[in-house]
Amino acid sequence: MKKILILVTACLATAGALHAQELANFASGRQRPVISPEIRQDSVVFRLKADYATVVKLSGSWLPNPWGDAIDMVRGENNVWEVTIPLPEPEIYTYNFVVDGVAVYDPQNVLVQRDGTRYLPMLTVPGKRTENYGEARTHGTVSHPWYDSKILGYSRRLTVYTPYGYESNPKKKYPVLYLLHGAGGDEEAWISMGRTAQILDNLIEKGLAEPMIVVMPNGNPGQQAARTLNIPEKQMDWRSESLRNAYVNSLCTEIVPFIEKHFRAVPKPASRAIAGLSMGGGHTITASILYPEMFDYICPLSAAGDATPEQLATLQKAGVKLYFLACGSSDFLFQRAESMHAKLDDLGFPHEYFVSEGGHTWANWRLYLNTFAPKLFK
Amino acid sequence: MKKILILVTACLATAGALHAQELANFASGRQRPVISPEIRQDSVVFRLKADYATVVKLSGSWLPNPWGDAIDMVRGENNVWEVTIPLPEPEIYTYNFVVDGVAVYDPQNVLVQRDGTRYLPMLTVPGKRTENYGEARTHGTVSHPWYDSKILGYSRRLTVYTPYGYESNPKKKYPVLYLLHGAGGDEEAWISMGRTAQILDNLIEKGLAEPMIVVMPNGNPGQQAARTLNIPEKQMDWRSESLRNAYVNSLCTEIVPFIEKHFRAVPKPASRAIAGLSMGGGHTITASILYPEMFDYICPLSAAGDATPEQLATLQKAGVKLYFLACGSSDFLFQRAESMHAKLDDLGFPHEYFVSEGGHTWANWRLYLNTFAPKLFK
Repeated sequence: MKKILILVTACLATAGALHAQELANFASGRQRPVISPEIRQDSVVFRLKADYATVVKLSGSWLPNPWGDAIDMVRGENNVWEVTIPLPEPEIYTYNFVVDGVAVYDPQNVLVQRDGTRYLPMLTVPGKRTENYGEARTHGTVSHPWYDSKILGYSRRLTVYTPYGYESNPKKKYPVLYLLHGAGGDEEAWISMGRTAQILDNLIEKGLAEPMIVVMPNGNPGQQAARTLNIPEKQMDWRSESLRNAYVNSLCTEIVPFIEKHFRAVPKPASRAIAGLSMGGGHTITASILYPEMFDYICPLSAAGDATPEQLATLQKAGVKLYFLACGSSDFLFQRAESMHAKLDDLGFPHEYFVSEGGHTWANWRLYLNTFAPKLFK
Repeated sequence: MKKILILVTACLATAGALHAQELANFASGRQRPVISPEIRQDSVVFRLKADYATVVKLSGSWLPNPWGDAIDMVRGENNVWEVTIPLPEPEIYTYNFVVDGVAVYDPQNVLVQRDGTRYLPMLTVPGKRTENYGEARTHGTVSHPWYDSKILGYSRRLTVYTPYGYESNPKKKYPVLYLLHGAGGDEEAWISMGRTAQILDNLIEKGLAEPMIVVMPNGNPGQQAARTLNIPEKQMDWRSESLRNAYVNSLCTEIVPFIEKHFRAVPKPASRAIAGLSMGGGHTITASILYPEMFDYICPLSAAGDATPEQLATLQKAGVKLYFLACGSSDFLFQRAESMHAKLDDLGFPHEYFVSEGGHTWANWRLYLNTFAPKLFK
């Protein structure tokens, strides 16, 4: 403790004189020689210049308990704090520094993911698992059109991915995957955290998936668009009986027709897929139950939702080409997936049940997209 | 000093026990009652919960010297640090907290602007100046297509704004503004820092500007796309004689034809405008000189570029409907603008010379876009 106190005293004594220079330094931050993160053969080094900090920690999504298990960093030359960790398994992780108890992004890392309203530095550990998460040679187009919703009472923003070649083949029509986010997300979640554009670009380029349009709506009916656009939210009780399925109704009777009018989509059940994670998995199940004729491909992922055997029997009768049910074995919703799997088995409803390690995480949702997208529209 | 030391000692003594709880708290950060920024009648309050910090400051773009002039914040109840500042003039500002010398974003503020590779919390002070910077009722579509560049040797990403009504009027053709960023930016700069979609949505909705397409390319020829996509940059000497105008040549002979093929653009000089800031102002001037027949509307903004009287005379002969030259009176490039203005005057080349207060800032570039966009295509 004495040593720390001496250090702190020295810092405080010089703080007045040094602060101005420090601030000037990070205003012109681009020239700094600090490299972070640095991926080596078997390890990753994180570094942060923090002249006046007393405790600096590293927190990351590879840790079993990211916040409780934050790792101490050590102050080195020029007040660059550093820590080296063993290389985690191939995956995309997010992390933060914690400077004297406050979360800090990594100013050296230009790669950032947006999770809901938070911006998090990214660490990609290369390997088989992540090979479709980086940029392909060919690229689809990501656009943000707005559609008018009479049901919800305003115009709302969508994210739409059209595959490579869409612009140069103006007569070709494409199947459509409707891909739904969870309660904390918005119409940008699957693009940023989910790497949807990269995964589809890679799968299509390799001939593993059919060229398809992917539509990512905003599943929070109170929002016109991502909260970052600063449009006031509509405060209503979306769980009340009269509004309960408002979003799913808007999806199936407004968004689907909008897409089939304004994009070159094949307007048939065999060319429509629906998938969603968590709350969006619930929306996926609800849409398949309320509109059993609409989608031939149905993929609830770590789903917060349920259906009765009678509803599933009706769906089965309407015709399903793929029912892909996925969940992590340590997900808090795993029992729901197990129960759905049992009901489908009892009905003799053909389905794929994909159980992965881990919990309610984007690592799993990227894996699921990369796994089921090649099975669609074939 | 003694008081601070006691505080620091107390913090360090309890840090071990408290850190875990603190970390748990900000993992579930959405529930925290801290509000920041809070805009009042004549002031703004900023707050940050920072349990173990010794010095917390606020830095913001409204300060004459944002980093040198950072304002001290004061620790209050529950270790929420706070400072109240007089309400700045209406404008969009960015700011940061500085916790023990390290820049920290505001975890309470969902509004974030992306400046190059940095993510900065936003403060919008409402008023006449900012009335077109917020969301309009109607919205255009922002998309990110990729075009193939033979000149630069790869496919590259563009940002394209199409106005409200583009999808529902499939026969209508539109004029196009090519809008270029500065050296620190990329194809997202005008959308994020420049508020291009909001400004155009508002101007068009109010009938003040013609509905137009806006094309925002990436002006750094070494980049296929924004660095945040993690595509390696091409390391070449872009100033060498053989490559010097490679980007402008790609813009005029590859991007313009790509847009006129894949979007419903009117392919005529009277329906093409070019504008750009700083390095993009230089690109604007160069494009107008190398391709004098291409654009009838030319808007160099705080431009890092120049032209000879002979080149300007050739341009004038080719026909120009608007030459809009803008610069801040304290911009480090102001003398260049003055010199261009004098040359245009000497030639009797009709032009608008728009001098604003302030320097080389996005506050000025938003103002210029909001000022010249209504003058285009009329």
